[in-house]
Amino acid sequence: MQILALNCGGSSIKYKVFSMPEEKVLVQGSVERIGSQGTTLRHQDLTGEAAECRKHLPRGDYGEALEEILKLLQPYRIDAVGHRVVHGGASLRRPARIDAAVLATLKACCQLAPLHNPANVAGIEAVARLLPEVPQVAVCDNTFHLTLPPRAYLYGLPYEYYERYGLRRYGFHGITFSYMVHRAAAMLGRDLQELKIVSLMLGSGTTANACCGGESIDVSTGFTPTEGLLQSTRCGDVDPGVLVYLLRQEGLAPDALEEVINKKGGWLGISGISNDYRAVEEAARQGHERARLALEVLAYRAKKYIGAYAAAMGGIDVLIFSGGIGEKSSSLRREICRGLEFLGIKLDDERNENGSGDRLISSPEASVQVLVVHTDEEVMIARETVKVLTGKEPSGAFGQG
Amino acid sequence: MQILALNCGGSSIKYKVFSMPEEKVLVQGSVERIGSQGTTLRHQDLTGEAAECRKHLPRGDYGEALEEILKLLQPYRIDAVGHRVVHGGASLRRPARIDAAVLATLKACCQLAPLHNPANVAGIEAVARLLPEVPQVAVCDNTFHLTLPPRAYLYGLPYEYYERYGLRRYGFHGITFSYMVHRAAAMLGRDLQELKIVSLMLGSGTTANACCGGESIDVSTGFTPTEGLLQSTRCGDVDPGVLVYLLRQEGLAPDALEEVINKKGGWLGISGISNDYRAVEEAARQGHERARLALEVLAYRAKKYIGAYAAAMGGIDVLIFSGGIGEKSSSLRREICRGLEFLGIKLDDERNENGSGDRLISSPEASVQVLVVHTDEEVMIARETVKVLTGKEPSGAFGQG
Repeated sequence: MQILALNCGGSSIKYKVFSMPEEKVLVQGSVERIGSQGTTLRHQDLTGEAAECRKHLPRGDYGEALEEILKLLQPYRIDAVGHRVVHGGASLRRPARIDAAVLATLKACCQLAPLHNPANVAGIEAVARLLPEVPQVAVCDNTFHLTLPPRAYLYGLPYEYYERYGLRRYGFHGITFSYMVHRAAAMLGRDLQELKIVSLMLGSGTTANACCGGESIDVSTGFTPTEGLLQSTRCGDVDPGVLVYLLRQEGLAPDALEEVINKKGGWLGISGISNDYRAVEEAARQGHERARLALEVLAYRAKKYIGAYAAAMGGIDVLIFSGGIGEKSSSLRREICRGLEFLGIKLDDERNENGSGDRLISSPEASVQVLVVHTDEEVMIARETVKVLTGKEPSGAFGQG
Repeated sequence: MQILALNCGGSSIKYKVFSMPEEKVLVQGSVERIGSQGTTLRHQDLTGEAAECRKHLPRGDYGEALEEILKLLQPYRIDAVGHRVVHGGASLRRPARIDAAVLATLKACCQLAPLHNPANVAGIEAVARLLPEVPQVAVCDNTFHLTLPPRAYLYGLPYEYYERYGLRRYGFHGITFSYMVHRAAAMLGRDLQELKIVSLMLGSGTTANACCGGESIDVSTGFTPTEGLLQSTRCGDVDPGVLVYLLRQEGLAPDALEEVINKKGGWLGISGISNDYRAVEEAARQGHERARLALEVLAYRAKKYIGAYAAAMGGIDVLIFSGGIGEKSSSLRREICRGLEFLGIKLDDERNENGSGDRLISSPEASVQVLVVHTDEEVMIARETVKVLTGKEPSGAFGQG
């Protein structure tokens, strides 16, 4: 079975064609800068001698990008398309074959993810037009977190907002977290059902997840991706009273406030240096005080989330680092784990500093296994797509809302 | 030395006269409903046969209340007055004898605590007018938390807000937390310097504190008292993106948003029952679903803060419950501690359910000592006042801002 995994972002599209179940990548590619000048498609065929082509897209819009991708994919058999969709709300409880009802749900969720779901819907509609016979599956990025209990997803706000707007913690990066915990269990030769896992996805977006017995029970991102850890430009957790203060003191409109918390905060906001973690880390190394503070805040919050989630699960067996920063910054991993020996967390300095790829980095005598895992959303999408179409997954993707 | 400890709140005044250092209460009283109809003064002399008098105050304003209190105190020698002041900002680093400079600082901090500091300043000025020869000392409620490191007090917002407005985590209930940790160390016969303590102050306001080696290193309330645990009507931690969503969706002005997060949230907001914890607990007992959810959210967040603060300190030796709810609700304490055995927390059911007063409620074999402590802000204010005036405290209350 050959699956096209399609990730339609706001200004980019990523795709891979997998031969399943062996998970072999046949083709991969991406279109960057959609909607800007210089929209470029990069396409690689990995079946032969890894031929690569680049192509400038003059119109640079979404439709053109998808048409070009599907044109390049014509020589390959595509048995199904799996889409990463950011938001499926609280009613789409499993990856689902896309029919009119599912599509309507995804459209209704545009209000919950106004920057992302419209692109996902556009991708689904383009494929339906260009490959009308090919079944499509939606794999939503929040689905993994729908197992959160109410104590973890309810905010301390008037309950009517939850009823009226679905205002609750949803959490994001679920496809990645699902991949991470399955990969960790496989690496350790353990049954996922037996494990209490804290995962830290540290990229330009950063999220912490608690997964107990294979189910997500808490996650640091919330109704929006802004909540939680310090992120590159998002503020993460902040006193809600501060926002009211800023509205008054700076006379901000909602759009301007949103820009402050999403585009001007995070390690950019504290350091004043860059949204690029590497630049902040380099500045800190050279003695830049605010860059050092930004890294301290990042590590401290991650440390607190590890403790909080261990308390939520009644213990911790596994800690996973992933994402560009989580995989690459040994000093950040060291700083986050420092002082957590009382939880059974102890890094092996040699393994932490050196080595590459998925690996164990904890000390052999530590009771918590600490892993570095490179995430692979696309293969997870392909797996879920196969599951939905071969019927190996329990039916009833639409559960109770 | 006889000390008048004075706590001027927004609509009430509480006072006690102590004979120090034996900490004997000679007189105590309160004025309630200042600024409303039915302002009433209640005064008790404990030196003889506990004579009590009540008095209606017809004007019902702040000045009248203080004049009446000081009139009733004329028969007693007052050597000094200690004031509880809500906010001393980041520059008043210790309890301080009030002179022109200190008063100016407290006035400048009115913008940080607009509902409270003006009442404190009014109290200081009234005492200066009516008892001009008596030295006064300011004991600020945020001072205890000024030992927080930047990683704990910085928000992930543009750094210029911190520089321009002093926008950072301050934390409140510091006098209470200071009392609690000192009392705990005394009860356990331990040196406070050696202990890692998490304190939960659970009243209508709720706050968690981490105290390591006698210094506050983190606290759940922030720039305002809104952040952190679920409170009676305050929302506590919430995705900042939610506030932007509500601004747009409900078209709220800053005042209305402030009312939502401070007056309509918390266990009132989730349960829809009451801001009174006892009513919510009773409703939950009778099977009211949303009341049960509110209690679950409260206990779950407290549990996560215990884990987070243990991680921040590299362990935990002592857990303290205080405040009306913390002292009285054995079921809430049980729910909060459930599943924390991996941290060494285990309640003794008998001690938790029964008994009263300050006591140890953990199981003898548990490594973490769990205590119930009744707080006494006034005696702490009297102690600090004596320290400042007898010079036993290191000088230099004005540290670096």
